[in-house]
Amino acid sequence: MDGLVIPDLHVRASRVRLVLTDCDGVLTDAGVYYSERGEELKRFSVRDGMGVELLRAAGVRTAILSRESSGCVRARARKLGLEYTWLGVHDKRAHLEVILRETGLTGAQIAYLGDDVNDLGIIELVKSEGLTGAPADAVEVVARSVHHRVSSRGGHGAFRDFADWIVEHATRDTSERVRGAS
Amino acid sequence: MDGLVIPDLHVRASRVRLVLTDCDGVLTDAGVYYSERGEELKRFSVRDGMGVELLRAAGVRTAILSRESSGCVRARARKLGLEYTWLGVHDKRAHLEVILRETGLTGAQIAYLGDDVNDLGIIELVKSEGLTGAPADAVEVVARSVHHRVSSRGGHGAFRDFADWIVEHATRDTSERVRGAS
Amino acid sequence: MDGLVIPDLHVRASRVRLVLTDCDGVLTDAGVYYSERGEELKRFSVRDGMGVELLRAAGVRTAILSRESSGCVRARARKLGLEYTWLGVHDKRAHLEVILRETGLTGAQIAYLGDDVNDLGIIELVKSEGLTGAPADAVEVVARSVHHRVSSRGGHGAFRDFADWIVEHATRDTSERVRGAS
Amino acid sequence: MDGLVIPDLHVRASRVRLVLTDCDGVLTDAGVYYSERGEELKRFSVRDGMGVELLRAAGVRTAILSRESSGCVRARARKLGLEYTWLGVHDKRAHLEVILRETGLTGAQIAYLGDDVNDLGIIELVKSEGLTGAPADAVEVVARSVHHRVSSRGGHGAFRDFADWIVEHATRDTSERVRGAS
Repeated sequence: MDGLVIPDLHVRASRVRLVLTDCDGVLTDAGVYYSERGEELKRFSVRDGMGVELLRAAGVRTAILSRESSGCVRARARKLGLEYTWLGVHDKRAHLEVILRETGLTGAQIAYLGDDVNDLGIIELVKSEGLTGAPADAVEVVARSVHHRVSSRGGHGAFRDFADWIVEHATRDTSERVRGAS
Repeated sequence: MDGLVIPDLHVRASRVRLVLTDCDGVLTDAGVYYSERGEELKRFSVRDGMGVELLRAAGVRTAILSRESSGCVRARARKLGLEYTWLGVHDKRAHLEVILRETGLTGAQIAYLGDDVNDLGIIELVKSEGLTGAPADAVEVVARSVHHRVSSRGGHGAFRDFADWIVEHATRDTSERVRGAS
Repeated sequence: MDGLVIPDLHVRASRVRLVLTDCDGVLTDAGVYYSERGEELKRFSVRDGMGVELLRAAGVRTAILSRESSGCVRARARKLGLEYTWLGVHDKRAHLEVILRETGLTGAQIAYLGDDVNDLGIIELVKSEGLTGAPADAVEVVARSVHHRVSSRGGHGAFRDFADWIVEHATRDTSERVRGAS
Repeated sequence: MDGLVIPDLHVRASRVRLVLTDCDGVLTDAGVYYSERGEELKRFSVRDGMGVELLRAAGVRTAILSRESSGCVRARARKLGLEYTWLGVHDKRAHLEVILRETGLTGAQIAYLGDDVNDLGIIELVKSEGLTGAPADAVEVVARSVHHRVSSRGGHGAFRDFADWIVEHATRDTSERVRGAS
């Protein structure tokens, strides 16, 4: 049984060319810092920044897909050198079509990392051919819907864990994969 | 025994039209960030923002009732689109009358979420007909006084948990409720 | 044995008129937020603010005694309405004399809450007649030196716990104290 | 067996004259706070500041060696009075030569504290003659590569733990060391 599952993840991981990630609750711990002027700061993790680099070295791009649209996220995306940042997207599931068109990728080349109920639609869609993940502290219904719940919490290495997991599975020895499936 | 308790919560939850929440220690983790100019920032959670939306979709409004009065809280309330924000209220219990008058609601339509000793008065009052809750890390005497101690800590999803719990109980199948009571 | 210890704490607690507290690591979680301009923010807890009020209601004043001297701490002290704030004090033990002179109190009327090795000197001194405490996450050698290690961490309610503990012990029924000692 | 290991650490610790530390994930919890203007704040710990002082008192200097180059780190280094701050260093292993030249020290006089994969190169190099450490929450492969994984997490006393450990080992009674080795 396990043998049937693992090779599938290998194949899926090796096809991934773009990791789409939610921002709040994934790249952050869901915290937003307000001053009297409004939303002022969000906290990100340099560990996740290293995850973006490790994926890039493996030929995989990273993009933020978020319902929120804030200056902090744009600034973080610039720092990370992300090719795409889709903000203010209320229907993420519907937006996947735009993403595939803009990037020229197929559904099988997409991985998605999300934490809350508004991620469920796109998780369902990506799941059929691509890969899906959730932080350790994702909302329960989301955690149950994804391929892989990582061991770190949002804002504390969840993206990095997902990146490591993809790279590791993508590069695992093919012979092992074949043995597993036999 | 359990059958007698659960239907009561169902009935109470289904009547709630306004969730009153304390701010510090509930919407925040009780932290306040000071610069040399004074109170500068408070940290909120987008998970709680989603809770406000889920309640709204279920026909339930949200309002902040706080002893403190700070610009950060006003800014957060604006972002969440809250209809009411009562700040600088030292006697919350006494203020409930103002709230009922302004909103045109009855005590049975109120839910209250608080964490510290200055919430005890209003908790006692709301408890008789409405619903009361506390974050996982509430002050012990408060935690013991409420109907429901949620599983998340203040500033880390406590409000969201309370919102989910109300929506879930309010919408649970009536037949189950009847069975439980029989 | 226990009976001999508890009444002593009662007596000591009932005599306390001033709680001296360290700042970093006690009122904060030892964190300091830097921008390129230098130290910018420190995070305090409103739970501790309530502790200051509860002590005040019991006739006990609060003062900050810190080696550091920063604008954030002054701002926090102003907000809490503290009568005394001694900052930039490198030899806290030696400074106790100044404190007793300025306040007109005796050593038996002092309680001290500290977390790190530079608190050891004053802890020794206060300990002989007054009360001493440490946050749950104090440096080990400090935790072992004080009368009471509270259950909350610095910046997360440690001061509040100490305040509650003093008020509780000071007001406990005298008969119990007498029984304990008999 | 243990007897062979402990004296070695004593000897190594007593030779250390410079503790090199990574910044993000070691002096901080890997968090970076972004506003719309970009990276705004990093959070440091005063406990680590005390660690710098304790090392200094033992005749050991401290320097930050980081791939990142940010104003917050420079400001923190100034506050701590560090003699050296090497920022924006992408190949830390190669940079060790520069460090030895600038400081006039040998490899045996260096200790290094790091948390992520870009620290592995210099950890290998320092390890042969000097001392190496990692925070409690270091990336697994780093934690497995160092002499000592401290009990505190990055930004929450990891550097302080490492400093305490070095000072303690350096000053431990020589007779004990000899007994251990016999």
